[in-house]
Amino acid sequence: MNKQGVLTVVSGFSGAGKGCVMKALLKKYNYELSISATTRAPRTGEEHGREYFFLTREEFQGMINNSELIEWAEYVGNYYGTPKKYVENQLNAGKDVILEIEIQGALKVKNQFPDALLIFITPPTGEELKSRLIRRGTESIDKIKQRLQRAADEVIHMEEYDYIVLNETDKLEECVETVHNIIQNEHYKASNNYNFIIKMKDELKAFKEGDI
Amino acid sequence: MNKQGVLTVVSGFSGAGKGCVMKALLKKYNYELSISATTRAPRTGEEHGREYFFLTREEFQGMINNSELIEWAEYVGNYYGTPKKYVENQLNAGKDVILEIEIQGALKVKNQFPDALLIFITPPTGEELKSRLIRRGTESIDKIKQRLQRAADEVIHMEEYDYIVLNETDKLEECVETVHNIIQNEHYKASNNYNFIIKMKDELKAFKEGDI
Repeated sequence: MNKQGVLTVVSGFSGAGKGCVMKALLKKYNYELSISATTRAPRTGEEHGREYFFLTREEFQGMINNSELIEWAEYVGNYYGTPKKYVENQLNAGKDVILEIEIQGALKVKNQFPDALLIFITPPTGEELKSRLIRRGTESIDKIKQRLQRAADEVIHMEEYDYIVLNETDKLEECVETVHNIIQNEHYKASNNYNFIIKMKDELKAFKEGDI
Repeated sequence: MNKQGVLTVVSGFSGAGKGCVMKALLKKYNYELSISATTRAPRTGEEHGREYFFLTREEFQGMINNSELIEWAEYVGNYYGTPKKYVENQLNAGKDVILEIEIQGALKVKNQFPDALLIFITPPTGEELKSRLIRRGTESIDKIKQRLQRAADEVIHMEEYDYIVLNETDKLEECVETVHNIIQNEHYKASNNYNFIIKMKDELKAFKEGDI
């Protein structure tokens, strides 16, 4: 079947446990996590081309001007973005690429790659999202309120995703398997197998026209 | 997630081994196979409501007139069709229903149930389809030619299916698992989970408006 890689975008509410799902998924299966470009300074131990592509503002601005980024945003004075070339190279090499980005970015990716698969990972209830944020115990009530308000703004776009996967408490493995299955099934979509369809049409047409 | 059953239509070239796949799938997993209506006489051992709903021509004609069939066709002097009510009852009871019907019928189902999942099961090559028909050893060369010509007519509609699954030699189990995964993933589609999305929107909106 199709040899082209599948481009998957995974999003979810901040604090909902999406990070744990992605970590477990990448540990168990062979996916290519897209590397973002940024203008922020590398932290100790971070390497260019591993955690990020570290660029100057001029370099980043040049990529914006040349449409070399699938999506980008400015956050606390620094640029962050997804280099198009890196993603395309991985897909053409037959690798399934995952982008873990927030919702506005995800919708921009879908715009440029209509075949991209958009998966939204969510806790089963709003109450559960709140509980997880509180249980982490690392943030003030004000910060938690901010995150919940952001979730309320983001949920409006949930229906623009292709699939919604629940990340239920103590069911991490189930969530990881579901995400993996959804991605792998993309390889069987008719729209991803036009070459195979054309081949079958040619072969069967030959039987019709000639002897068998 | 969504409690509504998924309606799946499985088609494939005659003689390609689709029957084996369906048999193994239904043995291993809990799917509801839709029962067709027909005007042909029951054969020994066949029961009304098990193999078929056996109807008179008048009864069948009445169902056509009252739009009670999802699709129907006349074949060698007898009517065959899929009763709408039976399928809808099963779906509303949360059961995943499978229709095993030929291609023209499948496209009519998609017309009436746009959310129906269409899966096409195919051998990996035209040559392999020919070999399987010959290996069965039950039919004349003329009959085999007819089947291949029909396949050549049918392959034109392959791209109208949602998924294409290869039924490769000695890989029956793999094919069955793929079909099962594709059907189960439908339950995670955003378009099948509007109730969940509405619930999350309401819950998160409440956080935004009130205290947490």
